[in-house]
Amino acid sequence: MWTMDHLPLDQLKKTYGFTPSAEWINRVTQASARLALGCSASFVSADGLVMTNHHCANECLEQLSDKTHDYFTNGYKAPHGQTSEPKCPAMELDGLDHITDVTDQMNKALAGRQGAEFTHAQQATEAALEKDCVAGDPTRWRCDVVTLYHGGRTALYRYRRYQDVRLVMAPDQNAAFFGGDPDNFNFPRYDLDMAFLRVYDGGKPAKTTYFPFDPAGPKDGQLVFTSGNPGSTSREESVAELGFERDVMVPFIVGYYATMDGALWQFGRQSAANRQDAQDELFGIQNSLKVYTGWAETLADPTMLAGKTAFETSLRAWINADPTRARTYGDPWARIDAAIRVERDIFVPYAMLEGRRAPMGVQGDLFSFAKTLVRGTAERDKPDADRLTGWRDANIPAIEAHLASTAPVHPALDETMLALSLTKLRQALGADNETVRLVLGHESPDQLAARLVHQTKLGDAKVRMALWKGGSTAVNASTDPMIVLARTLEPAARALRARMDDEVRAPMRQAAEIIARARFARDGANTYPDATFTQRVSYGVVKGWNERGHDVPAFTDFAGLYKRATGADPFRLTKAWQDAQNRVDLATPFDFVTTNDIIGGNSGSPVIDAQGHAVGLIFDGNIHSLGGDFAYDGSLNRAVAVDTAAIIEALKVVYNNQALADELTRGHL
Amino acid sequence: MWTMDHLPLDQLKKTYGFTPSAEWINRVTQASARLALGCSASFVSADGLVMTNHHCANECLEQLSDKTHDYFTNGYKAPHGQTSEPKCPAMELDGLDHITDVTDQMNKALAGRQGAEFTHAQQATEAALEKDCVAGDPTRWRCDVVTLYHGGRTALYRYRRYQDVRLVMAPDQNAAFFGGDPDNFNFPRYDLDMAFLRVYDGGKPAKTTYFPFDPAGPKDGQLVFTSGNPGSTSREESVAELGFERDVMVPFIVGYYATMDGALWQFGRQSAANRQDAQDELFGIQNSLKVYTGWAETLADPTMLAGKTAFETSLRAWINADPTRARTYGDPWARIDAAIRVERDIFVPYAMLEGRRAPMGVQGDLFSFAKTLVRGTAERDKPDADRLTGWRDANIPAIEAHLASTAPVHPALDETMLALSLTKLRQALGADNETVRLVLGHESPDQLAARLVHQTKLGDAKVRMALWKGGSTAVNASTDPMIVLARTLEPAARALRARMDDEVRAPMRQAAEIIARARFARDGANTYPDATFTQRVSYGVVKGWNERGHDVPAFTDFAGLYKRATGADPFRLTKAWQDAQNRVDLATPFDFVTTNDIIGGNSGSPVIDAQGHAVGLIFDGNIHSLGGDFAYDGSLNRAVAVDTAAIIEALKVVYNNQALADELTRGHL
Repeated sequence: MWTMDHLPLDQLKKTYGFTPSAEWINRVTQASARLALGCSASFVSADGLVMTNHHCANECLEQLSDKTHDYFTNGYKAPHGQTSEPKCPAMELDGLDHITDVTDQMNKALAGRQGAEFTHAQQATEAALEKDCVAGDPTRWRCDVVTLYHGGRTALYRYRRYQDVRLVMAPDQNAAFFGGDPDNFNFPRYDLDMAFLRVYDGGKPAKTTYFPFDPAGPKDGQLVFTSGNPGSTSREESVAELGFERDVMVPFIVGYYATMDGALWQFGRQSAANRQDAQDELFGIQNSLKVYTGWAETLADPTMLAGKTAFETSLRAWINADPTRARTYGDPWARIDAAIRVERDIFVPYAMLEGRRAPMGVQGDLFSFAKTLVRGTAERDKPDADRLTGWRDANIPAIEAHLASTAPVHPALDETMLALSLTKLRQALGADNETVRLVLGHESPDQLAARLVHQTKLGDAKVRMALWKGGSTAVNASTDPMIVLARTLEPAARALRARMDDEVRAPMRQAAEIIARARFARDGANTYPDATFTQRVSYGVVKGWNERGHDVPAFTDFAGLYKRATGADPFRLTKAWQDAQNRVDLATPFDFVTTNDIIGGNSGSPVIDAQGHAVGLIFDGNIHSLGGDFAYDGSLNRAVAVDTAAIIEALKVVYNNQALADELTRGHL
Repeated sequence: MWTMDHLPLDQLKKTYGFTPSAEWINRVTQASARLALGCSASFVSADGLVMTNHHCANECLEQLSDKTHDYFTNGYKAPHGQTSEPKCPAMELDGLDHITDVTDQMNKALAGRQGAEFTHAQQATEAALEKDCVAGDPTRWRCDVVTLYHGGRTALYRYRRYQDVRLVMAPDQNAAFFGGDPDNFNFPRYDLDMAFLRVYDGGKPAKTTYFPFDPAGPKDGQLVFTSGNPGSTSREESVAELGFERDVMVPFIVGYYATMDGALWQFGRQSAANRQDAQDELFGIQNSLKVYTGWAETLADPTMLAGKTAFETSLRAWINADPTRARTYGDPWARIDAAIRVERDIFVPYAMLEGRRAPMGVQGDLFSFAKTLVRGTAERDKPDADRLTGWRDANIPAIEAHLASTAPVHPALDETMLALSLTKLRQALGADNETVRLVLGHESPDQLAARLVHQTKLGDAKVRMALWKGGSTAVNASTDPMIVLARTLEPAARALRARMDDEVRAPMRQAAEIIARARFARDGANTYPDATFTQRVSYGVVKGWNERGHDVPAFTDFAGLYKRATGADPFRLTKAWQDAQNRVDLATPFDFVTTNDIIGGNSGSPVIDAQGHAVGLIFDGNIHSLGGDFAYDGSLNRAVAVDTAAIIEALKVVYNNQALADELTRGHL
């Protein structure tokens, strides 16, 4: 997971005899993009065509659907080519433009500060840097201050922001997620987990640097790269943090998600409309559930923890072996221990009231609007530098896009999610908790959720935007019951946020930065920083693995897909696919695995060859890759991708979309 | 958790100046009982009147309900006293009659045997002992071989078996489970979690030794006893076993139960009928979920594990300090490690296909009938000594009562449970698993569950009993699709059962027995054995505790109940309760806590004073008591009981049941 400005050139040359050209590096930088909601993407034509996963375009597909069109389930094809591509109501795509190292500015601002003062100085510096960077045009530029090596380096990332993202083509869900939950994180896979979007600039397709398709796809053993935005990893985390995650955080999240999984599963069985409304949410929950279950397994692995413990022991010994070093670095692990003690105490209320690693806490789109209005208008009243992270001027365009979205709200689903989360809130904090009493009063979670969802007007974008424009005065005066709920929760949520920021995150960041400095001093910059949902390049080869004694080949093909199709969900193919069985080349590769080091957020990353062609599309990792959050194991961890050969074959033969196939293969190098 | 034949007389005398009389011991033994389904109970009148918890009578209340009567929700009162008490369709109550020490017989039978041979010898010995004990009358006697101290002692328990158990009175669910899930395992509590049953013998109320009520209840600080059947504890378990439970077993069970919790929660919200059908199942799931969540917290506690590790280290050192001891005891922990390695590998498939700690694996009443028929008829064909535990001649009456039960089946609930569990089965074992493929074929879990539930005839007790009488020939020839499912699962389930018995349980038992012997040799019999769902007496005092800095008083009262009643579920009181507010004595104690050491299975235990009066009814523990599975902490662990004063006040004033109140207080000593 190397940053573009620090590629491992020596390793690449030594192992693969490959030296990337300046043109290759420039193409990989400029043609890579990310979706603001948390996926990777790439440009795949000169006219702003974007490739990502079907599961990354879920929201757009659902939001464009209505009672008579279920594009999520049945797929979509712009009926008259470019002129008819509809705008995704709430999608933002960011293309990386520039990276600036701002480590010195940040370190200077933070020097000597502790707790709340530290948090404030950090926020103020970030706000100033970001404000300067967007140069007065936050709808065109997006700037993020990114902490690397847990504070060892700070960088400012500038992105070209596209808020006019349109839908070009998506396959049916049966093909995109063939095998569904049982096959998820497994291999062999037969998923065509792709979607094509297009970014527009001034009402016209944007001009973009891009990866042309190699329609033949990659070969077994071939060197390949992924360029994407891995969301986060915890490879530099201390043993104390890992213990907290194993004992407190992961069990709580798994319990909450599993309950949501069951509730949404049953909700979806009640009617076809319910199923359609809930499928995106359910997919997300089941995916997260599997990720956290994988975490739990890795965190329980004594070998992994032993390795981390050995590293800490040796670094601590190295520090203490020299009095100057002992003075310089002190004992950062003691600070971490103190912060973790606080986090153990406040994690559950924090997760339920303020939310960590969404979706968590009080649920539902309508509540989310209310919380955005209550928090957002109050923060907007403050000087930019005093605001909480996520609520600065630079964030306003994304907040407004969220509030102004014309995507439909699903009241029955919202009511279920709200009722369930209020039930969980009371369960987690207890019926005697002050906030719980204030929120529920004399109502049950079911009664309160029903009343709020039926009475709120926040389903209407105009109402939301009027409140947003009216600012904190309008929001504080509002009697909309969903706003009242968000206002009721706000003081407790803010108090927990302050404790988390000042007593946990600030000292943890300081301690991690000291550890990172000590490590640099001892070992040099011999590794990449933990993932931060910013662009990273990873190299690897197309290669199967050995699973408990039997070899898993690197490729699947169309023949295997038809063999696996039982006819029942989730192993059911649409009629178009059934009809195509005699026309497709059954030997065409379908999905493949590589040794590339990826993690959540890499979904939608292109797989690129040494020439700069797209040869695949990352959509998953195998079950072992879930432990990659804590450590990468090259013998077992595999990235899973759709083969470009499968994409072209399916577009031509199954989806009758020669135009798109042509656009993708036009620029072959 | 002392056994009746080894009460800690010295400790009682020293600490409390109390020496139980022979009459007291006899009364406590004879007036204690248990429900075969897993609760404790006691006789509380000379005419076979039984006191237990409302939540222990759930099944009977649901099974006697129909479309127009919901006794579970609304409560029950036999309309014309004794003559009108209806029979619970599937309830068995066992009164302890006699305990025989059979350690020598068992040790002789097992000496020198390993693996499958060991398992078989153990089964054969148990079968012979039990057969002899029931003396040809298994409908009158129930005999269980019980392993104490993990093999250190073996005892034969004989019970007077009552299969004619009738319903006398139950309060409404709002009162029984006031505060519902949010208040569960908390205190203060305001639950009237009681139910009264009556055992009949030859069509007449049985004559029983009993605990007369003290209608004043206990005082703060008073010495009290509980007599009940704690289900199981793990206090003698090795560190390796605890690690397996923490890393593999508990996370898997919590994930499965949380999903069921969510699914049943949403199922219940669909209609009033659904809610009624699912409430018993949902209560059980939520209760178990809380128990296992408590386990997870305790297992993650480094102090607890450090204590266990220190014990093992010191015992190992003691063994190795003497060559004779080293020869005698060897290294039992190495054997445990090897067994745990197997259990880690097979636990998930075992849990899903064979079931451990029910409910687990494939779900639903209809499937449970099918599995009983397939397994039961095959086992019945073998000599008693060759059968698996649970399928011997001594178990036949309970099996037949289950199959012949006239309790209604709820098809919608059954279909949901079956679909969910088949989904989980495929998820846990993978779509490529042989058994999963055999079971699902070309159907989805939803399709298969719908077809099976609609086509099976096993909802009819006559059909079940015909198959049972027809034996394995009839069952093997049956085309009933639920039987076909059970038959399809059976080979894999049996194979896993054999591995679990031979490669895990047998060596674990042998190792535990060696450890128990070494411990006896070093420390003497200074403690009680792990709980085994057999009668145990625990002593303690009525006493509050300090919860994170604030004192929790030992008692609640009626005034507090009315104050807590918001009017919304689960803090809603029925009209009868609301109307009674002006008539009850608001200062009457309601629930109270004691330091008695209890665990699941103790539900329904009487709280007894030094004279032999009933002064309370155990129905729960506080959240800290959940960790009691692994260690008892007297500063925090509390048992939670209904006060006999509350029972009498509610019967008289709220439920207008003077006759029952009179029967309960008639024999005051």
